[in-house]
Amino acid sequence: MKKSALKARKDAAARLLLRKEAADTQAIVKGIIASDTAALSRAITLVESTRPEDEIRAGEIVEACLKEAASGIRVGITGVPGAGKSTFIEALGLFLISRGHRVAILAVDPSSSLSKGSILGDKTRMQELSRTPNAFIRPSPAGDSLGGVTRKTRESITLCEAAGFDVILVETVGVGQSEVAVHGMVDFFLLLKIAGAGDELQGIKRGIMEMADAVVINKADGPNLEAAKKAEGIFKSALHLYPPKDNGWTPPVMRCSSIEGSGIAEVWEMIDRYAASCHEDGSFETKRNTQNLHWLKQRIESALTSNFYRDPEIQKAYEAYKTKVIRKEITPGRAANALLELYRPDQTS
Amino acid sequence: MKKSALKARKDAAARLLLRKEAADTQAIVKGIIASDTAALSRAITLVESTRPEDEIRAGEIVEACLKEAASGIRVGITGVPGAGKSTFIEALGLFLISRGHRVAILAVDPSSSLSKGSILGDKTRMQELSRTPNAFIRPSPAGDSLGGVTRKTRESITLCEAAGFDVILVETVGVGQSEVAVHGMVDFFLLLKIAGAGDELQGIKRGIMEMADAVVINKADGPNLEAAKKAEGIFKSALHLYPPKDNGWTPPVMRCSSIEGSGIAEVWEMIDRYAASCHEDGSFETKRNTQNLHWLKQRIESALTSNFYRDPEIQKAYEAYKTKVIRKEITPGRAANALLELYRPDQTS
Repeated sequence: MKKSALKARKDAAARLLLRKEAADTQAIVKGIIASDTAALSRAITLVESTRPEDEIRAGEIVEACLKEAASGIRVGITGVPGAGKSTFIEALGLFLISRGHRVAILAVDPSSSLSKGSILGDKTRMQELSRTPNAFIRPSPAGDSLGGVTRKTRESITLCEAAGFDVILVETVGVGQSEVAVHGMVDFFLLLKIAGAGDELQGIKRGIMEMADAVVINKADGPNLEAAKKAEGIFKSALHLYPPKDNGWTPPVMRCSSIEGSGIAEVWEMIDRYAASCHEDGSFETKRNTQNLHWLKQRIESALTSNFYRDPEIQKAYEAYKTKVIRKEITPGRAANALLELYRPDQTS
Repeated sequence: MKKSALKARKDAAARLLLRKEAADTQAIVKGIIASDTAALSRAITLVESTRPEDEIRAGEIVEACLKEAASGIRVGITGVPGAGKSTFIEALGLFLISRGHRVAILAVDPSSSLSKGSILGDKTRMQELSRTPNAFIRPSPAGDSLGGVTRKTRESITLCEAAGFDVILVETVGVGQSEVAVHGMVDFFLLLKIAGAGDELQGIKRGIMEMADAVVINKADGPNLEAAKKAEGIFKSALHLYPPKDNGWTPPVMRCSSIEGSGIAEVWEMIDRYAASCHEDGSFETKRNTQNLHWLKQRIESALTSNFYRDPEIQKAYEAYKTKVIRKEITPGRAANALLELYRPDQTS
C-alpha cells in the first residue's frame, strides 16, 4: 500500500472514532436525561478522568445537562468522623425516598486520593440506601488537589440533577478547606454534631459555625439523650453570637437520632421551610448565580496563579527570593515585582 | 545652540537630578535611622505617593530600612465606631511612653479615600499624645483599593521601626476586609468592645472573634461598670468556643477604662506576656516570616489577576461569558477556559 493511501485510511479511522465518540456523547446525555443511572455513572467517570480527551467530552456532556437539571435542593453535610454522617445520610435518604424524592449522595474528601476513598467508598455503610433504586451513591473522586476534587463534585451535581435526582446530599469530612468548597456548591449547609463529655464546642474548626445553616445534634437517643439536650442549649447560645445570614435566616439547632429515626422528618421540614422562603424572596436563585460566578472567577484565578508557579523560570528564582525576604534583604513587594518581571508566559499554547 | 548640544545639556540635567535624588534618598534613610521624624514623614509621603518615580524611591528607602528596624511589637486594634479606639490608643500610648517606649500610630481605613481620612485624620482626637515627642501619629493613607492602603501601611511600619519606634499601634475601623489586612501585618490583634444593652455579641463581624488575640471591654467605668462585667462574662464563654491559637495562646477577655486609665497597664502586661512567650518558643519570628511570605504571594497573585481583568480583550468578553453562565449556556469551568484562551498578556512591557 502507498503511503498516501495509508494516511487516508488512518484519517478515515480517526474521523470515524470522532463521530463514534460524538454519537456516544449524545447517547450518554440522552441516557442521563432518561434517568438511566448507568449513563450517569459513565458520565461521572468521564468527569473524574484526568485524560484530556475525556475532559473535553465530560465538559460537553455537563454543558448539555446544564439546562436539564431537575429543580431541587443541594444540601451539604459536614461533621467530624464519628458524628454519624453515614447513618444520618442513610436515615435522611430513606425518609426522602419514602416521600417520593430521588436522592443522589456525593462527597468531597481531598484526603481520599491517599486513602482511596475514605468516605462513601464503602457502600456497605449505607446498605439499605444503596439497594434503593431512587438513590444514587457515588464515592468521593480521587484528586491531587481540593480544586480538582471540587470541580468534579460540582459537575457531578449537575449530572445527577439532569438525571432527575431532586435532592443532592454532599458529604464532607472537613479536611483542609473542603467545607468551604462544599459550602460554595450547596443551597443549605448542615453541621452534624454529637454530644460529648461537655466539650461539644471544642474542636470545632474555625469558620464552620459561621457557615452552618443549621446544627443538628445526632445520636440523641438512649443514654445520650440528656447530653444531647445539653449540647443543644450550648449550641443555641453559641449560634446567637453570629448575626443572621444575608437572607435573614437564623440557623436553628435541632436534635435527631439516625438509629431511632427520630427528628429526621423535622430536620427535613426545616430545610424545606428554608428552601421555600429562599425561593419566595429570590435569594435561592441569587445564591446559585453568585456561586457560579464565584466558581468562574476561582477557576480563572487558580489557573493564572498555578501557571505562574509552574513556570520553569519562576521555579528557579522563587526560592531565592523567599530566602531574601526572610533575610530582610528585599521587601516582599519588590521581590514580587522582580518575579513578575521574570515571568514570560508561554505564548505558543 | 545646536540640537546635539541641547540634548547633551538636557541629559546632564537629568543625570544631575538623578544624582540629587539618590543623595536625597540616602539622606532620608540616614535621617530615619537617626530618629528624625521629619525624614520619617517625608519617606511615608513617598510611600503614599502614586507617582511611579516616588514609588521607586520609596521602595529603595523601605528596603534600606528593613535591617534597621527596632525590635518591638506591632499591635493591631479594631473595634466599631464608638468603641473608643482613639481614647484607648491615647491612654495606651501615653502609658507606654511613660514606660520609656516610643510609639507610632498608623491606620488602615480603606474608606478614608472617600472621607479624606476618617480615622486618625484629626489629631485633635489624640491631643495629648500628638504633642508628645516620643509619639508619631500618621493618619490612614488614601487609596483606591484595600491592597494599596495595606501596602502603604505595611511599608510605613518598617519605616517607623527603623526610626526607633518600638511599639507600632495599627488602628482599623473594620471596613471591608481591613481587619484581615491588619491581622496579617501585626504580632498581636486586639478587639476593642464596649458593653451595650445586652447585645454585646450581636453585630460582631464574621471572623473577627477568631482573629482576636484578646478582647478588651472599654468604657468599663461609672454606670457602665456592671454592664462591662457582664459583657466580660459573655465574651469569655464566647471565646471558649474557639480552639487555642496555633502557638497555644488562649485569648483573654479584659476590662479597661480609657478615661480613668484603669486596666491599661494590665492590658499591656498581657501583651508583653504574649510577646515574651512567643519570643521564647520562636513563634514570634515564625509568624513574621509567614506574614512576609504571604505578602509576597499576595502581591504576585493580585498583580496576575488584576492584569487579567484589566486586559482589553478580557474586558470585552467577560460580561458576555458571565451572562452565558447565568443563563446556563456554559459551565463556569468552560467559560473560564474560553477566557483564558483569549488572554494574551502584553509581552513588550
